[in-house]
Amino acid sequence: MSTPEHHSLRHRVALALDPELRRRQGLSPANRVILGLILLSVVSGVLGTEPLVTQGRERLFFAIEAVLLVAFTVEYLARLWVAPEARGHPSRLRWMLRFDSLLDLAVILSMLLPFLGAESALLRLLRAFRLVQLARLGRYSRALSLVGETLRERRAELVISLAVTLGLMLLSSTLLFIFEGPHQPEAFGSIPRAMWWAVATLTTVGYGDVVPLTALGKFFAALTALTGVAVIALPTGIVAGAFAEAMERHRK
Amino acid sequence: MSTPEHHSLRHRVALALDPELRRRQGLSPANRVILGLILLSVVSGVLGTEPLVTQGRERLFFAIEAVLLVAFTVEYLARLWVAPEARGHPSRLRWMLRFDSLLDLAVILSMLLPFLGAESALLRLLRAFRLVQLARLGRYSRALSLVGETLRERRAELVISLAVTLGLMLLSSTLLFIFEGPHQPEAFGSIPRAMWWAVATLTTVGYGDVVPLTALGKFFAALTALTGVAVIALPTGIVAGAFAEAMERHRK
Amino acid sequence: MSTPEHHSLRHRVALALDPELRRRQGLSPANRVILGLILLSVVSGVLGTEPLVTQGRERLFFAIEAVLLVAFTVEYLARLWVAPEARGHPSRLRWMLRFDSLLDLAVILSMLLPFLGAESALLRLLRAFRLVQLARLGRYSRALSLVGETLRERRAELVISLAVTLGLMLLSSTLLFIFEGPHQPEAFGSIPRAMWWAVATLTTVGYGDVVPLTALGKFFAALTALTGVAVIALPTGIVAGAFAEAMERHRK
Amino acid sequence: MSTPEHHSLRHRVALALDPELRRRQGLSPANRVILGLILLSVVSGVLGTEPLVTQGRERLFFAIEAVLLVAFTVEYLARLWVAPEARGHPSRLRWMLRFDSLLDLAVILSMLLPFLGAESALLRLLRAFRLVQLARLGRYSRALSLVGETLRERRAELVISLAVTLGLMLLSSTLLFIFEGPHQPEAFGSIPRAMWWAVATLTTVGYGDVVPLTALGKFFAALTALTGVAVIALPTGIVAGAFAEAMERHRK
Repeated sequence: MSTPEHHSLRHRVALALDPELRRRQGLSPANRVILGLILLSVVSGVLGTEPLVTQGRERLFFAIEAVLLVAFTVEYLARLWVAPEARGHPSRLRWMLRFDSLLDLAVILSMLLPFLGAESALLRLLRAFRLVQLARLGRYSRALSLVGETLRERRAELVISLAVTLGLMLLSSTLLFIFEGPHQPEAFGSIPRAMWWAVATLTTVGYGDVVPLTALGKFFAALTALTGVAVIALPTGIVAGAFAEAMERHRK
Repeated sequence: MSTPEHHSLRHRVALALDPELRRRQGLSPANRVILGLILLSVVSGVLGTEPLVTQGRERLFFAIEAVLLVAFTVEYLARLWVAPEARGHPSRLRWMLRFDSLLDLAVILSMLLPFLGAESALLRLLRAFRLVQLARLGRYSRALSLVGETLRERRAELVISLAVTLGLMLLSSTLLFIFEGPHQPEAFGSIPRAMWWAVATLTTVGYGDVVPLTALGKFFAALTALTGVAVIALPTGIVAGAFAEAMERHRK
Repeated sequence: MSTPEHHSLRHRVALALDPELRRRQGLSPANRVILGLILLSVVSGVLGTEPLVTQGRERLFFAIEAVLLVAFTVEYLARLWVAPEARGHPSRLRWMLRFDSLLDLAVILSMLLPFLGAESALLRLLRAFRLVQLARLGRYSRALSLVGETLRERRAELVISLAVTLGLMLLSSTLLFIFEGPHQPEAFGSIPRAMWWAVATLTTVGYGDVVPLTALGKFFAALTALTGVAVIALPTGIVAGAFAEAMERHRK
Repeated sequence: MSTPEHHSLRHRVALALDPELRRRQGLSPANRVILGLILLSVVSGVLGTEPLVTQGRERLFFAIEAVLLVAFTVEYLARLWVAPEARGHPSRLRWMLRFDSLLDLAVILSMLLPFLGAESALLRLLRAFRLVQLARLGRYSRALSLVGETLRERRAELVISLAVTLGLMLLSSTLLFIFEGPHQPEAFGSIPRAMWWAVATLTTVGYGDVVPLTALGKFFAALTALTGVAVIALPTGIVAGAFAEAMERHRK
């Protein structure tokens, strides 16, 4: 089982599959193919939820799904086989119990179920589940992991700025609940209800489905919009700063 | 009353309650508990305004409120007792007349009233009043107070940028009042009415409940939106800059 | 007419009225009063357009207007009298023909007309005209004039960034005109009509009064929104940068 | 054909037409005229799509179009004639096959067709086609080409930030598809449908034509709006940074 020759083949497969073992820059050819399959799988999963697209193309989507299922199963088994070659030389069981590996297995199972005859309502949810594969892209991109790291370093700032945002949101929800609530009980009749309006206003999304109608309600809504524009800049600035720093590090 | 032993107990209680006397970093265990109670009180106050949540859970909310009332009363009395230990050694009366202490007392009274049989409409307002406790969080967070300080230092910039924003708001309200007012008297029939539209446009919230319909009105609205996007960046930039500076100081 | 004594009085009045002659920092007491009167005049002009406010308070507004009219007339005549003391020693005629002086005179005349029995529709416009006094605030604020100066220096950047914004606006209006126009001729039936939608989308105001309904229209609208968010940051960044620089200069 | 004299005339025409050959700063008088004609052509093309403007002014627009057609044809032929003088001395055929030259020819043909009696529906599209001339402005503006160059240099950052934005968009579309889809099949019944809402929310445009109605849908929509505000700042910051850098280079 562990003759040098066999080991040598397993090592070469591991080099082709594990981005952390690769010495050259960029992705290996095998990972490029996997990346392409993931993107195809996401596109198929997204478009597969739209009846206008799938109607009359059921066989095409069936074929794509079958190919993707086989490909991801082969890839999973191959990565399971070469698991002991990875950093820290984990056992295959420990590799299987990793969060990333469990997620990959869950995606494969979610793609298998439709072939076993799942209900159509469930089937649509299963198609959507596939999007967790987007998280795998992070594993292949050094730049994306750097962004995550940088954000973790600025956790304190993020928490404080989100606390300020949340505080302002609670304050303006309460004011609108007090002054607008009696006139529009459906939209402002409680603080949690008023928060839907507060989020739309503070983020400047401003759907307009819920709007204050009284003079006092409009006055406090205007104050909220004006201060909100400044407050929402705090978490925004932190994320943008972390991204710029991560890109700087990535270049070096 | 002021035997060394007693003084020693009072001093230890003061150390546990007053963040300014604490030498180690972070909050004392007692303050962590108080912080948790404040958060619980805010959550209970927010959810307690929503009938869909409280219905059938009246006894649970009653119990939570009773526990919070007792806890905050005990805390208030304890802080009153140790007041002379604080910086500047204020008398208990002077401590009671401080703005922060008056606010704490008002919150306790607002929580007491429902138990004395207040009206249900008033009761909802009293629940909301509780959110002033959010201001107490600032006392426990060095970072938050630093943000406040930094903003005070940049007062001049903030005032000027707000004056520019207000000037643009008045200008565009006047233009829309002149050109759109005759066609939509309800929404643009006076400058104060047009200001509701102007705030929604300048902050880019854009609810869409009030929109110009004439060609000239749309032209000046478009100009307002385009200049507004740039002008609103001024106070936003000042607040974001002050926050970044405060965080820098906090780290040191 | 130009005895030393008289000259001395005129010089002292000039020092009190002309911010450019003042050596100490801040405004002179006379200019503080004038500033207050301008703000009162703007507030009266704004509130005076709203029937809900003026109704039953006609005599109060009449009195305020009469006082303001007298005060601004006295101020204008005083500044005309001391004009030769200003920098460059202009003749009184040249001072009267300055843009700022003509504007001040126009405001006084606009406040005089209602007392001579103007029509009520015109009267409302005359009230609004008063807001040009806001421009006078700039004369009293060194910081505000610095912002204007800094923006003038960055004219080239502003023009280019506005050209890019305008180009993107024309492009997306044209695309929506082509793809959405046949389905919504009222809103997208010509490029100028589609521009109202384009401004609301690019500035992220998003009123929602006009929205694409076809799949292709939505696709190009989504592209416009995504690129617009980035493009609109260009003039915004320039204005914010100019403001920060002006404030830096002001401090020195 | 290539006597020194003739060559000298051709060289002078080339100097007048080709901005790359010009040694002095700014545009040549000939290029200023062409720039003005392009702007006139764009304005005429934009206004010409609006019936309220063209009605009763058919002869004016006809005359403008005829003049522009002649002018652009003469310019095209002149540039074809002097093509061999340009950098790299291309043959006239190679010049004609350049992308820019083909575009110029296409614009001229699109302006010729209406005179040959094209259908009115096609005619409106042809008028809009003219806006591709806006791209020619880039050739005349060194600053604009620098912005393009700087953006190309930051391609990697742009791609990553757009990937993050797209990922968040897919994630929130999927969540709304799952939780809101069963209640609003028209707006959230598939992931591609939900993406229209997701774009409007993440860019903070917030038309409000499509809004979640269920509590869970609103909860995830609020999360999307809050994270979206921060994520959309990434590509925005990169574009703004690239622009600032390009302007800095341009000044030197």
